[in-house]
Amino acid sequence: MRIDAALGDIEAVLGERLSRSRPVREQHAQSETHLHAGPPDAVAFPRSTAEVARIAEICTAHRVPMVGWGAGTSLEGHALALKGGVTIDFAQMDRILELRPEDMIVRVQPGLTREGLNAALRDTGLFFPVDPGADASLGGMAATRASGTTAVRYGTMRDNVLGLEVVLSDGRVIRTGTAAPKSSSGYDLTALMVGSEGTLGLITELTLRLHGQPEAVSAAVCAFPDMGAAVGCVIETIQHGIPMARIEFLDAASVTACNAYAQMEMPAVPHLLIEFHGTEAGVAEQAERFGEIAAEHGSADFQWATRTEDRARLWKMRHAAYRACLALRPGAEGWVTDVCVPISRLAEAVEETQADLAASPVPGPILGHVGDGNFHAILLVDPQSAEELAEAKRLSGRMAERALRLGGTVTGEHGIGFGKLGYMEAEHGAGWAVMGAIKQALDPLGLLNPGKMVASA
Amino acid sequence: MRIDAALGDIEAVLGERLSRSRPVREQHAQSETHLHAGPPDAVAFPRSTAEVARIAEICTAHRVPMVGWGAGTSLEGHALALKGGVTIDFAQMDRILELRPEDMIVRVQPGLTREGLNAALRDTGLFFPVDPGADASLGGMAATRASGTTAVRYGTMRDNVLGLEVVLSDGRVIRTGTAAPKSSSGYDLTALMVGSEGTLGLITELTLRLHGQPEAVSAAVCAFPDMGAAVGCVIETIQHGIPMARIEFLDAASVTACNAYAQMEMPAVPHLLIEFHGTEAGVAEQAERFGEIAAEHGSADFQWATRTEDRARLWKMRHAAYRACLALRPGAEGWVTDVCVPISRLAEAVEETQADLAASPVPGPILGHVGDGNFHAILLVDPQSAEELAEAKRLSGRMAERALRLGGTVTGEHGIGFGKLGYMEAEHGAGWAVMGAIKQALDPLGLLNPGKMVASA
Ligand SMILES: Cc1cc2nc3c(=O)[nH]c(=O)nc-3n(C[C@H](O)[C@H](O)[C@H](O)COP(=O)(O)OP(=O)(O)OC[C@H]3O[C@@H](n4cnc5c(N)ncnc54)[C@H](O)[C@@H]3O)c2cc1C
Ligand SMILES: Cc1cc2nc3c(=O)[nH]c(=O)nc-3n(C[C@H](O)[C@H](O)[C@H](O)COP(=O)(O)OP(=O)(O)OC[C@H]3O[C@@H](n4cnc5c(N)ncnc54)[C@H](O)[C@@H]3O)c2cc1C
Repeated sequence: MRIDAALGDIEAVLGERLSRSRPVREQHAQSETHLHAGPPDAVAFPRSTAEVARIAEICTAHRVPMVGWGAGTSLEGHALALKGGVTIDFAQMDRILELRPEDMIVRVQPGLTREGLNAALRDTGLFFPVDPGADASLGGMAATRASGTTAVRYGTMRDNVLGLEVVLSDGRVIRTGTAAPKSSSGYDLTALMVGSEGTLGLITELTLRLHGQPEAVSAAVCAFPDMGAAVGCVIETIQHGIPMARIEFLDAASVTACNAYAQMEMPAVPHLLIEFHGTEAGVAEQAERFGEIAAEHGSADFQWATRTEDRARLWKMRHAAYRACLALRPGAEGWVTDVCVPISRLAEAVEETQADLAASPVPGPILGHVGDGNFHAILLVDPQSAEELAEAKRLSGRMAERALRLGGTVTGEHGIGFGKLGYMEAEHGAGWAVMGAIKQALDPLGLLNPGKMVASA
Repeated sequence: MRIDAALGDIEAVLGERLSRSRPVREQHAQSETHLHAGPPDAVAFPRSTAEVARIAEICTAHRVPMVGWGAGTSLEGHALALKGGVTIDFAQMDRILELRPEDMIVRVQPGLTREGLNAALRDTGLFFPVDPGADASLGGMAATRASGTTAVRYGTMRDNVLGLEVVLSDGRVIRTGTAAPKSSSGYDLTALMVGSEGTLGLITELTLRLHGQPEAVSAAVCAFPDMGAAVGCVIETIQHGIPMARIEFLDAASVTACNAYAQMEMPAVPHLLIEFHGTEAGVAEQAERFGEIAAEHGSADFQWATRTEDRARLWKMRHAAYRACLALRPGAEGWVTDVCVPISRLAEAVEETQADLAASPVPGPILGHVGDGNFHAILLVDPQSAEELAEAKRLSGRMAERALRLGGTVTGEHGIGFGKLGYMEAEHGAGWAVMGAIKQALDPLGLLNPGKMVASA
């Protein structure tokens, strides 16, 4: 690694948009969670694909690591420069390149955030559904295969990225996918890049599927006597084929946190937050059928949010749930778990996790995108306490093992970063070595986000 | 390649289930289309993953090609053993391994066909939607990333395969995906294998997503004054977000073919065949709104098929359309084209293709899954005529170039096989070399379905 020579060459391309200043570097050593690492050697702010390609060529020539950076909201230390090198911050590549309403697609740069995109789409009748709560960048969301509250209806980034432009480690630029709705042409490089966490290439452009803004929307907050009843209601709703747009679970502790943080007044019992999208008649029909199922599962308190403001407040509260949980224990850091299991095993997975938590000194409110079998315990740890960190590690390890035992995955949506690297072999077995072989084929020098995803050379 | 030694070793494992007989080998040199090649050296009929893994080990040890075979219905010579070796026919691996209605998934062996699966699901309230017309094997459908009439609503094999078991060229067995609805764990090896046409591994098991059988179904046959009106109707229906389960286009020539072959009496003008799935009320609402749009686009003759028998007859006719077209010209072979473009360019793509065909001596009825922007011209060629074959090649080349120019793909659903290898570089540019690198990483000796998908070593 010849870092100085590399930075000199990159500076010749970017000028002041290559920063070696301590505050900028420190900013790119931040993570939302308990995971920490030192800063990169410099941060680059490219404005075009050509600039990204030049950076990659230079870094390859000098054997310098390259780490992509979107909005820095990922939860497993994904964007931390474990081996130093250059962090490539896509903040200045945030334009909409082409909107094609007739095809319901949009071509964007990776630094655009999902909220930025949806603000720009407001008057078009279209929207981009993937909703991880945080205002993440679309490049980062593709890189982590993000999802969120609406995946149960609209899918994850896997389903909503139609094509990409990607700069490879050596500076070659490839385009994956087309603007056609489907293709059987060749290996699915789009899907390979989605979820690759910046270890196979740097995404410089995305073609995204858009969806029609629903004609009618209806949301509800439903209290349940216990977690099993809430999960039972979810399973039955899915089996009846009622097309929910969102179905979110909050346990009693999360409800308490949200009440305090967002001035809500929900009873301190498990809740489902649910939303339907469709025509007026369709939504009314769905809501009625869901209401019957929920009542059968003992949901007594049942409030429909029909006004736009009420719904906005509801989802703002849901999106603030992470902060709300953190606020339960001032000074604590969040250790965010993220398992996903087959729906039929969801109640079991949540119950066993609750039992673990009840027996532990570390608090951990539980919430999740239960329509996908996906839930999180937000473990609230004192970052100064080695015991608490060890306990959180044990709890999250048990959740991961449980998810695998039940036929699920150690991460439903947050990804691997370096926080979950230790589970890759358990989840993928010989498949993990195949991932290593692919990494080796595309990034033979191991310069793209080193220390992540695959076994280190 | 030490073929005799390899066959001896495989025979020791499979006994009579390794066939060197000429008829069996010839049967595995058949293709549905104008593409032909010599037979493999032998055909293996394994019954378990372990047997497939042993075959792969033996073939690798002796440097012998391995070619997967499902139902042999692919249309670009995919399953032809271009370099000889062993064809692995999955016909005897056709069991349902595990049905999990609560999770709406099923685990199957690759040789099971989609009709076989749906017959077994009939009384469960569930079905598997991907419908390529032919009674293809599920392994072959995954390998070609197949779709068909219902993709506009339920997606393609990309969307409906949740996980796989795959035997790699050296005999290692990997499992991709999990039984959970989504995951952000690692590179998406499932998506990489789907559409890889047996060049990266042999699929020995699939976990598939099932869907609820719709409560209500309604289908219609609508005649349009011209192709532009029919396509305009499709585009507007999509933009209104009306959730069609199927929307198929037949041009006047296809209609004539179907009338003759299936004793139908449609007027000889372009038609749309459409189907809605949902609740009684939902389907009625959708049908009404579609009816309005179709009428605005000049659809005069408009027949609803409400009875199950009428719908069955309708889709049987659609599925027989290929044979119906072949019957237009006895003795002809089909050269089936398969392009896919963004919806907004569909009318243009079909019109230009029709103009080409009008000026050509080779007949080519056009039909397609227009809700996806996907259509086929069935070129009817005299296999003895070098001029006609050259003309068909020219026509299909122009369709492929047109699709790329309009932002689409050279194959919407049939895949590459060896018929379309010549377009890979034009469609993927530098991405094709990346595919080559992945092939090299997973199958370094190039033994899996050689001569397909990537540039030959
Ligand atoms: C409060 C809160 C709630 C959240 N809720 C959810 C949720 O519901 N669902 C969910 O999925 N996630 C959730 N997350 C996690 C996070 O928002 C997602 O992981 C998101 O996709 C990260 O995007 P980002 O732009 O912040 O990426 P970053 O954190 O900047 O980077 C993430 C990874 O992507 C790589 N990367 C970034 N840009 C590029 C690029 N252009 N090319 C190649 N690689 C790149 C980075 O190197 C890194 O490996 C939540 C986070 C917070 C803080
Ligand atoms: C009348 C007709 C209509 C059609 N309509 C459509 C349509 O609407 N949509 C559509 O998508 N296709 C259509 N097709 C094409 C064909 O049905 C599909 O390509 C189908 O997916 C092929 O499946 P198969 O089992 O016949 O595969 P095969 O032809 O046997 O093999 C196809 C490829 O898959 C590989 N393969 C097979 N099994 C395995 C395995 N277990 N592991 C690894 N590789 C394997 C083979 O090596 C080969 O490369 C049609 C074909 C016909 C004849």
